[in-house]
Amino acid sequence: MDSDNLSSTTAGKPIRCRAAIARVPGEPLVIEEILVDPPSSHEVRIRIICTGLCYSDITFWKMKDFPAVFPRILGHEAIGVESVGENVNEVAEGDIVIPYFLADCSECVDCKSKKSNLCSKFPFKVSPWMARSETSRFTDLKGQTLHHFLFVSSFSEYTVVDIANMVKIDPEIPPNRACLLSCGVSTGVGAAWRTANVEAGSTVVIFGLGSIGLAVAEGARLCGATRIIGVDVIPEKFEIGKKFGVTEFVNAKSCGDKSVSQVINEMTDGGADYCFECVGSSSLVQEAYACCRKGWGKTIVLGVDKPGAQVTLSSFDVLHSGKILIGSLFGGLKAKTDIPILLKRYMDKELQLDEFVTHEMKFEDINKAFDLLIQGKCLRCVIWMDE
Amino acid sequence: MDSDNLSSTTAGKPIRCRAAIARVPGEPLVIEEILVDPPSSHEVRIRIICTGLCYSDITFWKMKDFPAVFPRILGHEAIGVESVGENVNEVAEGDIVIPYFLADCSECVDCKSKKSNLCSKFPFKVSPWMARSETSRFTDLKGQTLHHFLFVSSFSEYTVVDIANMVKIDPEIPPNRACLLSCGVSTGVGAAWRTANVEAGSTVVIFGLGSIGLAVAEGARLCGATRIIGVDVIPEKFEIGKKFGVTEFVNAKSCGDKSVSQVINEMTDGGADYCFECVGSSSLVQEAYACCRKGWGKTIVLGVDKPGAQVTLSSFDVLHSGKILIGSLFGGLKAKTDIPILLKRYMDKELQLDEFVTHEMKFEDINKAFDLLIQGKCLRCVIWMDE
Repeated sequence: MDSDNLSSTTAGKPIRCRAAIARVPGEPLVIEEILVDPPSSHEVRIRIICTGLCYSDITFWKMKDFPAVFPRILGHEAIGVESVGENVNEVAEGDIVIPYFLADCSECVDCKSKKSNLCSKFPFKVSPWMARSETSRFTDLKGQTLHHFLFVSSFSEYTVVDIANMVKIDPEIPPNRACLLSCGVSTGVGAAWRTANVEAGSTVVIFGLGSIGLAVAEGARLCGATRIIGVDVIPEKFEIGKKFGVTEFVNAKSCGDKSVSQVINEMTDGGADYCFECVGSSSLVQEAYACCRKGWGKTIVLGVDKPGAQVTLSSFDVLHSGKILIGSLFGGLKAKTDIPILLKRYMDKELQLDEFVTHEMKFEDINKAFDLLIQGKCLRCVIWMDE
Repeated sequence: MDSDNLSSTTAGKPIRCRAAIARVPGEPLVIEEILVDPPSSHEVRIRIICTGLCYSDITFWKMKDFPAVFPRILGHEAIGVESVGENVNEVAEGDIVIPYFLADCSECVDCKSKKSNLCSKFPFKVSPWMARSETSRFTDLKGQTLHHFLFVSSFSEYTVVDIANMVKIDPEIPPNRACLLSCGVSTGVGAAWRTANVEAGSTVVIFGLGSIGLAVAEGARLCGATRIIGVDVIPEKFEIGKKFGVTEFVNAKSCGDKSVSQVINEMTDGGADYCFECVGSSSLVQEAYACCRKGWGKTIVLGVDKPGAQVTLSSFDVLHSGKILIGSLFGGLKAKTDIPILLKRYMDKELQLDEFVTHEMKFEDINKAFDLLIQGKCLRCVIWMDE
């Protein structure tokens, strides 16, 4: 082994480590020892320092049918580098990286364009494999292949990630803050900043004040929105929302005879400049569209509805309203350039991240983190692998 | 009468003139003498030099129920000024103006904003009255009130139009070209230029190569689009389309086992940058959306579907595609500023208008113009009032 290139003692060999494996849909993860293969070409093996838990992890843990597959290592908000495969120049051992689910290959027409964040070379899918080789790097000690999740699989002490799915970051950034940028917070902040391009002085409506909705509020606040109206069915969300710039609250259960859009249209004298649907309900997309101001109102869809769900809008409204409908995957962020920008804004004390972390716990307690998120008792729970 | 202010002999008095009246849905217009009241405050009485005929005229001529009303003076592509009411400083007797259906009051938040062309003071509606007073300026010789159409009613030798619904133009411009800018051609060219903001080098798909679709092609050509793909069911449309920059043709009836969107996606290696729906079919909006390139593709809706029609999109596609859906009324044009720009481009031999006028005829023959348009045998037919 050439010690100049591969200085760690583990490089080039499989690593035996602990991972939390989803073996049966909806049943507690099982922490087991597994083998993690060394990285192939264009891949990096990462030592996970800590990982967040995102609602998509729960969705694919509960789901019984394809694209859910078992056994699988879930998790996709994470951070760390152990060793690198061939053709990796961007990062080296000892660097700190953030992995993310939406590839940024830097080479395809989309990744080169300022207009798109949807890589053509490695299109988004809920694949059980590595993006480039369609193989797994995980096996359990009985030799059974374990599946990847969203090209990250961070619920393991070590994982292997394609270079297109990670970006090197400033090692000074606390890992339990940086890991939030892997998915949820980036998605919300990015949707306001990149997809909607919220203008200073504007009015914003957010359907659903979970982590994603609150991250939208945070993004809108950073963009200088004057009014940020949160819509939810849990009144306590307003107090939490205030930390992220929410200025007004509409309880969707207390609108009386009026629809939420009627209430919002009255509050805003004809509708908001931007409406974000963060719940994952197609009927709410319709309601968000109705809350948008004619002439220039934008409806931005972030929520994931059930497979087969349809968004229905009145043909008359589409033609006569001048409103815009757009979806936002990973907040429209180009991961390799935008994650470092957001982290710098955190270090400059502009972007709030601390406030998203309501709980931190040990890897052994990962199932407790699942319970907290399912019960809606946490925003982001950071799981430390080495404590 | 103060001859300094009102120099014409007709000013301030009702004018007796000929108009083509729609008295019964779908039956030939009847040319009769009518009385046209003098303009009230903020209004201008116009002597129509010539008028175009647009498909909306036919739609509201055939329609039996509200918002269709009878008797009515249809027509909304026109030109000329006879006298002005109080509070009109923008135009004077003898000026040449173009009336248009979508108000531009210059005062409301929308008209002052660069982002909207949907006046808040006089919102778009298919009203039977003048916008400001909700009254009519037309009566027949038996004293019956005749209804206005789209704030223009150009199928009359004289009409009265609000100052918000007209713009003064260079009198050197031939009237039988200028009148095209009142509606159809502006809508198509504007949709490419203002609503979509088509970039040079881009690929455009147009569903429906009628006058509106051809005007979109003309707009896209002016914006520097490289590929302009026309979709229609009549192969002859391709030859016409070539005059306006259409480079390729897809016959929607000859796609075999494939859908139009599959054919377009193959032709364009993943979809077009801009897709325009000019037919007025919600299912085609879905197909246009499917023809758009992921990441940045825009679907622009221009076609008017039946009341109650709905646009349905897959929730998954909306979220994961990054595509944009937007409607375009009057091409997103701000009439008072953009119509003069387009006319200058015509005089500079950049914008093609001559090619849209396939027929010209006398006012007496207006019902023949209706037949030609219904049979799809003309693009724009100009009707001269004084021949």
